[in-house]
Amino acid sequence: MITDFSETLIVQEVSPRDGLQIEPTWVETVDKIALIDQLSLAGFSRIEAGSFVSPKAIPALRDGEWVFKGITRQPGVIYVALIPNLKGAQRALESSADELNLVMSASQTHNLANMRMRCEDSLAAFGEIVHYVGGTQVRLNGSIATTFGCPFEGKIDEDRVLQIVEAYQELGIQGITLADTTGMANPRQVDRLVRRVLQRVSPADLTLHFHNTRGLGLCNVLAAYEAGARRFDAALGGLGGCPFAPGASGNICTEDLVNLCDEIGIHTGIDLPLLLKLSRGLPALLGHEVPGQLAKAGRNCDLHPTPS
Amino acid sequence: MITDFSETLIVQEVSPRDGLQIEPTWVETVDKIALIDQLSLAGFSRIEAGSFVSPKAIPALRDGEWVFKGITRQPGVIYVALIPNLKGAQRALESSADELNLVMSASQTHNLANMRMRCEDSLAAFGEIVHYVGGTQVRLNGSIATTFGCPFEGKIDEDRVLQIVEAYQELGIQGITLADTTGMANPRQVDRLVRRVLQRVSPADLTLHFHNTRGLGLCNVLAAYEAGARRFDAALGGLGGCPFAPGASGNICTEDLVNLCDEIGIHTGIDLPLLLKLSRGLPALLGHEVPGQLAKAGRNCDLHPTPS
Repeated sequence: MITDFSETLIVQEVSPRDGLQIEPTWVETVDKIALIDQLSLAGFSRIEAGSFVSPKAIPALRDGEWVFKGITRQPGVIYVALIPNLKGAQRALESSADELNLVMSASQTHNLANMRMRCEDSLAAFGEIVHYVGGTQVRLNGSIATTFGCPFEGKIDEDRVLQIVEAYQELGIQGITLADTTGMANPRQVDRLVRRVLQRVSPADLTLHFHNTRGLGLCNVLAAYEAGARRFDAALGGLGGCPFAPGASGNICTEDLVNLCDEIGIHTGIDLPLLLKLSRGLPALLGHEVPGQLAKAGRNCDLHPTPS
Repeated sequence: MITDFSETLIVQEVSPRDGLQIEPTWVETVDKIALIDQLSLAGFSRIEAGSFVSPKAIPALRDGEWVFKGITRQPGVIYVALIPNLKGAQRALESSADELNLVMSASQTHNLANMRMRCEDSLAAFGEIVHYVGGTQVRLNGSIATTFGCPFEGKIDEDRVLQIVEAYQELGIQGITLADTTGMANPRQVDRLVRRVLQRVSPADLTLHFHNTRGLGLCNVLAAYEAGARRFDAALGGLGGCPFAPGASGNICTEDLVNLCDEIGIHTGIDLPLLLKLSRGLPALLGHEVPGQLAKAGRNCDLHPTPS
């Protein structure tokens, strides 16, 4: 059980990127900007606002430049862009992203399917990006997809994850994200791996990225927090998902996570009523229900009238 | 974090009762019997098979006698019936239920709304039932609804819950269920209350009943297990729900719970592939999707073919 409730849990809101990228419905640029601007007022210190990926690969996010140009930046908020390669880094810098999130899979098979290159080639490309970004104020974060399991290969050797963490650090990438890309993590595994990674990475530089594909997302957050992790990705409404598991949940749901923190007394600094309002607007924006529970159930403090 | 993985987690399957009672679609008696018979083969030691409540109050379960008469009982499986009053107890005994589950809310307001009587009157009625059942082999369990929060009153005083536990024990009711009727519990609260209750109730006699209304059901299971609880209610597919939160999840989902246990190494003795098969049949039976995640996503070991 968690015994330290004194430290803030930092939520990085990823709905504009990991949430929207899988949506079949085109979300207008103005609506993306409006969503990010509202999220910027909700108390997040970090928002993954978009990606600079090939528009053919991810057409839903092909308007990255316009989104970054259009948003109203709030002081103290870091606006992150996911980038797959040097060209993406160039576009992101031209769009004044504060931080670039690079991604490679721990699974060779998944990296080939997702990035269309071998892991060695991904790392070589990251070296070029680090060199390109050097001398700017832009931060770098390296995500390790399929850290906790691969839908093609199954279990991932923990030593391999540690080796990738080291490889990122040797390249000069300071931030590390352990990503449970298709929701295969369990709390015992999370506890073990987070403790190992925290021997090499400071809690301030480590992010955990969980999906709720098999219903364990928040269990994994609690296990990671107890093991010392303090920063978590989450998506409004639980947006996102996995093309291999249609109908299953996506990212852990931001408002469900913030509610959990509020209820057990972990500070997040995030405005839950505003999140609920935004989440309840998602079905109209996207044309379908979203997985988050709290927006449907309401908070505990939203009492019901006594039946007569 | 859980450190003791050596003890079995006992799952009481409640879908035939707490799952079906809220369903608007009538499930034929033969289909209920078929479901229970399949569940009886899946390795459960306890199944809440129905209730003997007024057919006007819960028409979906008005065929309790026929269900109990029609099922094929497996050795070692305890078939439980929920009963609201002495008349229900008489019907349950005539139907050879192995155990009667009595229920009263910790919240006076909720008990008035749900049972149409004050808590004192519920306790008096339980006294009559204990007397009536005395001398038979039938076991008694007392559920405390709204243990972790009431949708009308809000927070529930933990001392009040402890007093009800004592009142149940003084009446001679051995089994105790702490029920989070509308999904208001959080892991910190669960940890604290379970430890207190286990000072008075043996782990073999204590059941935790969680709903996933706000996405915290499995987090609460882990907190309760870590605090020493070993028996949990769950419903196939995550059936059930709360009339005050339409669209929100119901009971914690049995197959999601069993998968969690399998993944972290806690023994349940339950056949997960059979559960998944049964869960995947629910939408056809009920006419709607169900909340459980695992049936949509598949197990971690169900690998996907490598993309060409």
